[in-house]
Amino acid sequence: MNHPTPPATLARRPLPPAFSEALAARFGERFTTSAGVREHHGRDESPFPPALPDAVVFAHSTEEVAEVARLCNHHGVPLIPYGAGSSLEGHLLAVAGGVSLDLSQMNKVLAVQPEDLTVTVQPGVTRKQLNQEIKDTGLFFPIDPGADASLGGMCATRASGTNAVRYGTMRENVLALTVVSADGRVIRTGTQARKSSAGYDLTRLFIGSEGTLGIITEVTVRLYPQPEAISAAVCAFSSMGSAVQAVIQTIQLGVPVARVEFVDALAIRAINRHDSLTLPETPHLFFEFHGTEAGVREQAETVQQITAEHGGQGFEWATRPEDRSRLWNARHTAYFAMLQLKPGCKSVTTDVCVPISRLADCVTETEKDLNASALPCPIVGHVGDGNFHVAILVDPDKPEEMAEAEAINQRIVERALAMGGTCTGEHGVGLHKQRFLVQEHGEDALDLMRAIKDALDPNHILNPGKIFSATRAGSQSGAPG
Amino acid sequence: MNHPTPPATLARRPLPPAFSEALAARFGERFTTSAGVREHHGRDESPFPPALPDAVVFAHSTEEVAEVARLCNHHGVPLIPYGAGSSLEGHLLAVAGGVSLDLSQMNKVLAVQPEDLTVTVQPGVTRKQLNQEIKDTGLFFPIDPGADASLGGMCATRASGTNAVRYGTMRENVLALTVVSADGRVIRTGTQARKSSAGYDLTRLFIGSEGTLGIITEVTVRLYPQPEAISAAVCAFSSMGSAVQAVIQTIQLGVPVARVEFVDALAIRAINRHDSLTLPETPHLFFEFHGTEAGVREQAETVQQITAEHGGQGFEWATRPEDRSRLWNARHTAYFAMLQLKPGCKSVTTDVCVPISRLADCVTETEKDLNASALPCPIVGHVGDGNFHVAILVDPDKPEEMAEAEAINQRIVERALAMGGTCTGEHGVGLHKQRFLVQEHGEDALDLMRAIKDALDPNHILNPGKIFSATRAGSQSGAPG
Repeated sequence: MNHPTPPATLARRPLPPAFSEALAARFGERFTTSAGVREHHGRDESPFPPALPDAVVFAHSTEEVAEVARLCNHHGVPLIPYGAGSSLEGHLLAVAGGVSLDLSQMNKVLAVQPEDLTVTVQPGVTRKQLNQEIKDTGLFFPIDPGADASLGGMCATRASGTNAVRYGTMRENVLALTVVSADGRVIRTGTQARKSSAGYDLTRLFIGSEGTLGIITEVTVRLYPQPEAISAAVCAFSSMGSAVQAVIQTIQLGVPVARVEFVDALAIRAINRHDSLTLPETPHLFFEFHGTEAGVREQAETVQQITAEHGGQGFEWATRPEDRSRLWNARHTAYFAMLQLKPGCKSVTTDVCVPISRLADCVTETEKDLNASALPCPIVGHVGDGNFHVAILVDPDKPEEMAEAEAINQRIVERALAMGGTCTGEHGVGLHKQRFLVQEHGEDALDLMRAIKDALDPNHILNPGKIFSATRAGSQSGAPG
Repeated sequence: MNHPTPPATLARRPLPPAFSEALAARFGERFTTSAGVREHHGRDESPFPPALPDAVVFAHSTEEVAEVARLCNHHGVPLIPYGAGSSLEGHLLAVAGGVSLDLSQMNKVLAVQPEDLTVTVQPGVTRKQLNQEIKDTGLFFPIDPGADASLGGMCATRASGTNAVRYGTMRENVLALTVVSADGRVIRTGTQARKSSAGYDLTRLFIGSEGTLGIITEVTVRLYPQPEAISAAVCAFSSMGSAVQAVIQTIQLGVPVARVEFVDALAIRAINRHDSLTLPETPHLFFEFHGTEAGVREQAETVQQITAEHGGQGFEWATRPEDRSRLWNARHTAYFAMLQLKPGCKSVTTDVCVPISRLADCVTETEKDLNASALPCPIVGHVGDGNFHVAILVDPDKPEEMAEAEAINQRIVERALAMGGTCTGEHGVGLHKQRFLVQEHGEDALDLMRAIKDALDPNHILNPGKIFSATRAGSQSGAPG
């Protein structure tokens, strides 16, 4: 298994002239086939070579999305929803050509319901924009993938981030969606109620469907009261294993930490350089505590005791906002800091998640594996969830480096699956994890996913080639092209 | 809209002899057509008249469930999974005949993973049994519907209960399922990892599917550390509106209450009689706080202040386990206490859930409505979620009482839907809420649910007649029978 080039098996065909004419007539300058715009929409943050769409449409409303879907469905043209472009797994690559539907201009916060602790937004709203716009309500939205992703994209990949250990992932925090189906119908999933037992959970079906079942055009998410008090702490460890053991004990004791992040020695070096910090270059845990003044003090004291029992050194506790921000900004920009360890590199980023009882074993065995490679491989992780990322830094123009990165990735995934874990905790499958799905889910479960795909997108126009090959033995409908 | 009798349109046909012979040969005495056993399996806690299955099979393993499914699918025989029999909405009624598949003997706790805070059980394990069996681990399972329901049934209805405001519902607390498909394949959904982005969320698709998409044969759920400290409190209010306003403020301030339950004056009277308590017969809130010693004290003090601001009287705070148990046992047996308000009655139980900003309006308007009825209608509610139940106490043999109850239910549901809520927060649709689904979801969303049903159960053998009519305009496959 080497470099996961986009599947060469998906045929491309030119856009039907009647189709292009209809889009041009309807969208004017918001329909384009210019090379520059197509180039921009045919790549993402993954290490894959670009795969350009044949055209790009910039949508402004749910009804416009529905019109594009109806046209694509009628003409059998692939349709790829595009948000902030921050996918790490090739979700946005137009491997079968077609139309990239850019939703970034659908970026309005439609309705804040502060009494209900909810907000409804268009899919192009980014997480930072959202928190900026609702700041004065005293509420915040906790899900924070590394990039300033769009809410639509975060739904599509079932994203999480550093706060998931306390606040959950997109799976737990979306109340309702508006979705355009493959044939251009507008569907509301869910209500404004906090919970419901009224029929199948369509909301959860679209969350994590990576644009292959429908196009998300509105999102209602839960918000949380800004904590009365926040404190942060960092703590250095002599080994990964002891750091992870401290996390396990923290979780098992039920300490309601808001964040607990692992950063290995190499990632600390990257952060020190990038953010002018002077942390000792050893494995670290970053903590954040949310609650009342007394509550966060109590949490921090408990965690300080736990880390001391596991050999943690120099537990530093920051309550001043500027100190906390400095620490957490460093963690949030770690991805970009790590890329600077190797000029011109790209990152093949792993994303396994294991049961927390296996996390120390998994990280320690992975560390041995990485030490055997010449590639720089810093590790960061949302360890409270059992999820960690290895950024395998490669020169994408060197096939031998790409091959080595994929070999490392494969060993990490197989180790995680053997431990009862998953190949992807929060980045999604895209093009990159497809080959692990049979091992993770089994053929029958995958077949069931394909049956759902066939039922909801019978012409296979929606983001073809992603998650799994849409065709299966005995399927009556083939991929378009 | 009157008494929701089971749909008369579903035809019944005798079991094919070859089918019965095959089951008898395979299951011996665990296959039965005896009237007593069929009678027991043709009813539940709903006010509907019984609808008997033609036979009952007691399964002992996933493989046995798969064998039954394959036979039913081959012969087009309806198949209804049966757990504890505690449905309130007619889920278990064999409205098209067929086989009731009793899973109550699949009641083993298969594996406790205390380090991961998870447990894997067979579907017949009940919530009380589970907590009893894991008591020594220091962990507990928080989801607590009123009945001692089975875990399989709680998955099937997307159940919740009094702890949902803090710990979530079955939707948030199931990590993985083993499911037998309509054609008898065994599917694993999910892994032991806390989160995953690896493909469609099959786990959430089966949760809340009410036995219509597959048969759940293993469940892995999250557990939580038993809190270091627990305290409980009750507080009396002069009106429902003021009690609900106190709840809204508690939630909006982010106080992490574990439980907050509303009990109206009539329900208090029922509880006083049933549990020999002497609470003043006015609306009450019951609270429970989980945390550290200092944390629960702080929560209780904050809530005491909030309730005082809303005219709450006699905030009583119980930390001794026996006092807490007495209070919460009274709340947990409220359903049975309420039934005793009217000897020989059954309850038509409403289950709406609204955005919390509308809860005071919804409850107050509902109260006016109930005051105009001669039927006793006590109210209890999981008000932290915006969910409340009216137990409309009827003599099921008096059609005029049934009709009045249904008229009240209809007004309550329509009010909730107009407020952005749902017709069912936790009991499921079953036979009872079907007519509200179009208004709640729209035809296109329902059509999508039917497409999923067609894809996963093309012969429509699984719990026919539940959630929605499985046939739709243009469907190529009809209901069996």
